[in-house]
Amino acid sequence: MLLESLPTFMNKKKRQLEVCLTPAIYDKHANNENIVVVIDVLRATSSICTAFANGVRQIIPVATVEEARQKKEEGYTVASERDGYVLDFADFGNSPFNFSGDKVKDKDIVYSTTNGTRCIHMASHSKEVLIGSFLNLSALAGYLIEQDAPVLLFCASWKDRFSLEDTVCAGALAERLLASGKYESICDAVTASSDLWSIAKCDLNQYSLKAAQKGRLASKGLDDCIEFCHQLDFTDLIPYYSDGRLLSKANGTNKK
Amino acid sequence: MLLESLPTFMNKKKRQLEVCLTPAIYDKHANNENIVVVIDVLRATSSICTAFANGVRQIIPVATVEEARQKKEEGYTVASERDGYVLDFADFGNSPFNFSGDKVKDKDIVYSTTNGTRCIHMASHSKEVLIGSFLNLSALAGYLIEQDAPVLLFCASWKDRFSLEDTVCAGALAERLLASGKYESICDAVTASSDLWSIAKCDLNQYSLKAAQKGRLASKGLDDCIEFCHQLDFTDLIPYYSDGRLLSKANGTNKK
Repeated sequence: MLLESLPTFMNKKKRQLEVCLTPAIYDKHANNENIVVVIDVLRATSSICTAFANGVRQIIPVATVEEARQKKEEGYTVASERDGYVLDFADFGNSPFNFSGDKVKDKDIVYSTTNGTRCIHMASHSKEVLIGSFLNLSALAGYLIEQDAPVLLFCASWKDRFSLEDTVCAGALAERLLASGKYESICDAVTASSDLWSIAKCDLNQYSLKAAQKGRLASKGLDDCIEFCHQLDFTDLIPYYSDGRLLSKANGTNKK
Repeated sequence: MLLESLPTFMNKKKRQLEVCLTPAIYDKHANNENIVVVIDVLRATSSICTAFANGVRQIIPVATVEEARQKKEEGYTVASERDGYVLDFADFGNSPFNFSGDKVKDKDIVYSTTNGTRCIHMASHSKEVLIGSFLNLSALAGYLIEQDAPVLLFCASWKDRFSLEDTVCAGALAERLLASGKYESICDAVTASSDLWSIAKCDLNQYSLKAAQKGRLASKGLDDCIEFCHQLDFTDLIPYYSDGRLLSKANGTNKK
């Protein structure tokens, strides 16, 4: 049988899937063709997904306190913390519980987050930059399976160290993408994250208590959102980065 | 009961255990007090352990081809490869099978390895730098349990990317150290490596086939050593770094 006569789906080359475990090695995975999914489960990308689920119009991610302060002076609603404390000029902090409908619906919100913003900017050269978390897992997986590009799952981690919760979330996505038969991988971080997810998924809330970030948040009384951040499919919206701001789209094949 | 009256073993603070998954984030884990175990399962640290098991007197690790060539001119026996090919001036390549007794017994060997040498030099500020692999796992664990210092398990990885086989080996060591009750950890990479080891240990050889490095070695016909490198306790010797060379010591509590 000639190759040309094979049905398209058999003929099509599988897309590459990679996982980047820390921003410190992002350059080893970077590729302009990639769709990059930034994952910061505790708490940036979970908060962003929650905000869109609750009707925010757009989110402007900023890295520094000064940028956040300036945006506040321009009249924006600003979510901003440093070391777990809400900054004096900010409207509220960075927990997903702060992004409730009464605070964010139909608004433009400025969100100050060091790690998350840095990763979004690092990946902005890519074909597409999406925001991922457990909260929009199925929608995101469904969307990615429909695209035709290599995918990089980018764990924002904590100060460049390895983060368990981001890796497990990447593993949950990797499992779906590989199971679709449209992706393949020769990346050890895909194997590791998938295997960690295979352990964690039996009791995700229990497993999430192992994460070092749980202890860091608990020491500041900010760990009340951990269970919320580890629930699957709270929303079918997929936030994406475009021209300095985050907007969101739904994937037609998934519903809330 | 007063704290002072507790038996010493109950009173003693546990030592910290960390795992560094790639040299790119070594600075996040570095500490002059650390005992650092460099792990490069495929193949540098497995080859070094094999060489000492087979009677080598000392190994001089060098990073560059030029250093290796100069050492050859000085009369040393040199093991050196680049991209899987034995260099023309070298005596043999980097597989553990090359470090047989007839070639290395009572000799000083120069070993050229990019990743391994780099990691050894990066860690040389530490209290101690040891060479770890599956081949000396029990001896190493026994030795570390007897020491009184924080331990960092340092995965050499491949070109700064995450490596499955090094991480699983770190997990095997972490399991022993934590089980001793003398170590504790708040490092997510310790949790992840231990959990990966808990999956891998059921059939370590089968699991090792998942590693991307297996494919890289296979493409050059160099994968014949993978099963050998994944066997536990081939030797009770612990190579260590001192003044530009590797020597070895045995741990009294372990036997071959």
